[in-house]
Amino acid sequence: MSKLKNVKHLQCVNCGKTYPAEPGLYTCPACGPKMGILDVIYDYDYIKAHTSKEDFAKNKDYSIWRYEPFMPIEENGPKPKLRVGWSPLYQAQGLGEAIGLDHLYIKDDGINPTASLKDRASCVAVAKAMEEKAEVICCSSTGNAASSLAGNAASVGIKTVIFVPGRAPIGKVSQLKIFGANVMSVQGSYEETFQLSAEAIERFGWYNRNAAVNPYLVEGKKTVTLEICEQMDWQVPDWIVFSVGDGCTIAGAWKGYKDLYEAGFIDKMPRVAGIQAEGCAPLAHAWKDGKGEAWEQEVENTIADSIAVGVPRNAIKALRAIEESNGVWETVTDEEILDSMRLMGKTSGVFGEPAGCAGMAGLEKLVKDGVIKKEETVVCAVTGNGLKDVKNAIEAAGEPLKVEPTIEGLNEALKKIGY
Amino acid sequence: MSKLKNVKHLQCVNCGKTYPAEPGLYTCPACGPKMGILDVIYDYDYIKAHTSKEDFAKNKDYSIWRYEPFMPIEENGPKPKLRVGWSPLYQAQGLGEAIGLDHLYIKDDGINPTASLKDRASCVAVAKAMEEKAEVICCSSTGNAASSLAGNAASVGIKTVIFVPGRAPIGKVSQLKIFGANVMSVQGSYEETFQLSAEAIERFGWYNRNAAVNPYLVEGKKTVTLEICEQMDWQVPDWIVFSVGDGCTIAGAWKGYKDLYEAGFIDKMPRVAGIQAEGCAPLAHAWKDGKGEAWEQEVENTIADSIAVGVPRNAIKALRAIEESNGVWETVTDEEILDSMRLMGKTSGVFGEPAGCAGMAGLEKLVKDGVIKKEETVVCAVTGNGLKDVKNAIEAAGEPLKVEPTIEGLNEALKKIGY
Repeated sequence: MSKLKNVKHLQCVNCGKTYPAEPGLYTCPACGPKMGILDVIYDYDYIKAHTSKEDFAKNKDYSIWRYEPFMPIEENGPKPKLRVGWSPLYQAQGLGEAIGLDHLYIKDDGINPTASLKDRASCVAVAKAMEEKAEVICCSSTGNAASSLAGNAASVGIKTVIFVPGRAPIGKVSQLKIFGANVMSVQGSYEETFQLSAEAIERFGWYNRNAAVNPYLVEGKKTVTLEICEQMDWQVPDWIVFSVGDGCTIAGAWKGYKDLYEAGFIDKMPRVAGIQAEGCAPLAHAWKDGKGEAWEQEVENTIADSIAVGVPRNAIKALRAIEESNGVWETVTDEEILDSMRLMGKTSGVFGEPAGCAGMAGLEKLVKDGVIKKEETVVCAVTGNGLKDVKNAIEAAGEPLKVEPTIEGLNEALKKIGY
Repeated sequence: MSKLKNVKHLQCVNCGKTYPAEPGLYTCPACGPKMGILDVIYDYDYIKAHTSKEDFAKNKDYSIWRYEPFMPIEENGPKPKLRVGWSPLYQAQGLGEAIGLDHLYIKDDGINPTASLKDRASCVAVAKAMEEKAEVICCSSTGNAASSLAGNAASVGIKTVIFVPGRAPIGKVSQLKIFGANVMSVQGSYEETFQLSAEAIERFGWYNRNAAVNPYLVEGKKTVTLEICEQMDWQVPDWIVFSVGDGCTIAGAWKGYKDLYEAGFIDKMPRVAGIQAEGCAPLAHAWKDGKGEAWEQEVENTIADSIAVGVPRNAIKALRAIEESNGVWETVTDEEILDSMRLMGKTSGVFGEPAGCAGMAGLEKLVKDGVIKKEETVVCAVTGNGLKDVKNAIEAAGEPLKVEPTIEGLNEALKKIGY
C-alpha cells in the first residue's frame, strides 16, 4: 500500500490504466513517456474526513505546505527549506479599468523565492526526491524550472544537474550558477535539450524533475489555484487566465479547482483561458483549427522564452483543462506581450517577465473580443518576475530621459514631462 | 495635535529639539537638511495600552502593516497596494556549518515586491504621501529606493519623478520604466543628481522620498527587525548583521528592537554589526580609527552599488546603533562579497545582490576573527535580490558549460562534472 494516505493511485491520461503511487514510476509503461502522462488521483473521502476550511483558517503555515492534505506528500516527510507560495493576490482596479474589467485580480507569482511559479513544482520535486533519498536531481528547462530546482535543492544540500537551451536569458543562468547547479548549456533547441537530459537521467537513475514526465510536479503547481481560492474566501472567479508552454501550469491550475470541487470546498468551477505566444502556439493553434488533441510540433519563435515550447509535454492535460472548463485558447504577439508588460507595471506595480505577461496580454484581447465580459470576475496569473529578463523590459518601456546636470537641463527635462 | 496617536513628536538627532509630526516637515529647521535628521519619538505608554503579543498572534495581515501600532501612520489611513514585508527568516544550517556558526538565520528581504528591503521604506513614503494627498513623489537614487518607490506608487496611481545618475544599472532602470516613472537620467555624478532632485522638489512642492531626509522612511525599514523578532517568537538574537550604505537600514533595524524593548515586548537587546564595502566605508573607517561621529567623505569604489555611498545621509543614527548596542563595524572587499554570494547561494538557496551579500561576507570575517562566537545566535539580512545585478553574479559564479546536442557532446560534458 502506498504511504500516501490521501492518494488512491496514478492514472494514465492516455489509456486510463492505474498504478500505485510508488517511487520510481514516472510515466505509464504501457503508453511510453511521450503519451503516458500520469495523473495523481486522490481519495476525496479521506481528504474530506481529514481537512476543512476551518483547518485552513487556523493554519499559520503561509506556504504551499498548508495544502499538504491535497498533495501527494508523505505526512511529516522531509521538505526543502525555501518558503514557496502564498504569493499575493491583488485586486487590480487600475489595470481592470484600463482593459475594461470591473473585477480583475492579479496573482503575482514572481515573488516566489527564485522568482517564478515554478518554485511550486520544484519544491514538491525536491520533497519527493528527499522521500526517495535521491542524491542527484536532474531536469531540462527553458530557465525557470531549472533555477527553482537549483534553489530549492541547494536549500537542503542536494546536487543538481540541469540542462538549459543556449538561448536561456542570463538572469536565469546566473541563478543556476549561484545555486551551485551543474549547468549544461545545450547549443540547440529546447527539444534537443530535453532529449539530452532524458538520456542522462536514463543512464544514471537520477531523480527526474522534468515537467509532465514527473506526475507530482503538476500537484505542486496546483497550489496556485488552491491559494487563489482561499484568498478569495472560497469564492470561484468566472475565469482564470494562464500563459501556456508545456501545459503543466494550466493543468495544475485546473486540477486545483477540480480537487476543491471534489472535496466539497466549492460548488462551481471557473472557465480557463490558455494563452500562448503566437510564435510558438501548438496547443492554441490545434484548438482554433478544430484538431482536438492532434496538435502539431511548432518552431520556438518568441521573446516569451519560458513558454516557447514547440513540443509541449503536458498537451493532453492542458487541452482537457480548456475543454472541460468550456474555456478558450488565445495567442498573442511579442508586441502585445510587451505592451501588456508596460501597462501592468504602470497601473499595478507588478513587473512580469514576457512569458509572465502573456496571460494578461491574452486576457486584454479576450475582453476586447467580447469573449470575457466586463462584469465577470477574472484572475490572471503573472508566472515570473520581470527581473529575470530586463533586456526585454527595456525593449518594452524604452530608455530613460537624458538630462544635463544644470538648471537649464532640468528645465528642459521638466518641460518634456509636462512641468 | 498630531493625528498620529502613538507618536509624541519628531526629534533632531543633532540638537535634540522636538517638533510636532506634521506634514511638510522633513528635517530640523535649526540644523539644516544635512545635520538635522529627525527621529520619530513614540508614546510607548499608548503603544503598550493598545497592542500586545497576543494581538500579533491573532493578526492575519502578513505584511508590514501588521506593525501599524509601531508606525507613524494614520489609523485606517490610505495605503499602497503591494504586499510588502513578512519576508522569510530561514534557519541556515548548511551555511552556518560552512562559516562556523551553530545558530545562523538569514532574513531574505530580496523577495519583496520590487525585490529589495527598500520596499519597506517606499511603501511608508507612499502611504504618507497619500495622507498628505500629494500628487507627485520625487526622489533621487542609484537604484533600489527608486524602483521600490516607482512600484509602490504605481500600485495606487501616484505619479513619480525619479532622478538617477547616468551610470545606473539596466536592471534597476528597467523596473523604473516599467512602473511608469518619469525617469531623469542625469549625465553627471550622483551628487549632481541629488542636487537636481532637491531643486525640483523645492520648486514644485513634490513629496520628498529622499533617504534620511524624510524621517518616516527609517520607520518603514525598522519593520524588518519587528518581523525578525516576532518570527523568532520574541526571542532576541545575540547579533544582527546588516550591510550599510547611507545608514538608514541599520538605523531602522536598531530602532525596531528599541521600540520593542521600550514597549515591553522584549527584555534584552541584540548587538549590531554594520558591514561596509572596503571601497566605500566612511562609517566603518571612522569607527576603526576612533573618530566617533567625525566621519569623512569617501570615493565610491565597489561593485556593491546599493551601499556605495560616500556621503552617508543617516550617519549619526547608524553610528549610534553600533555604539549603543556595543556592536562592531567591519569592511569587506568586492572579492569577499562575491565569494559570500556564491557560498550563500550554494548552501541555502538564497541569491542576494552584491550589497545584499556584504553583510554575510562581513559576518564570515567576524566569526573568523573570534568577534562573533560559534554558539551565538546571529541573524543576517539579505537586503536585495541577486536578479537586480546578474552581471556580477555571473562574475561570481562563472559561465555555464556549453554542450553540443549530441550523445558525444553529452558524454564529454558529463565527464567534466565527474560522471
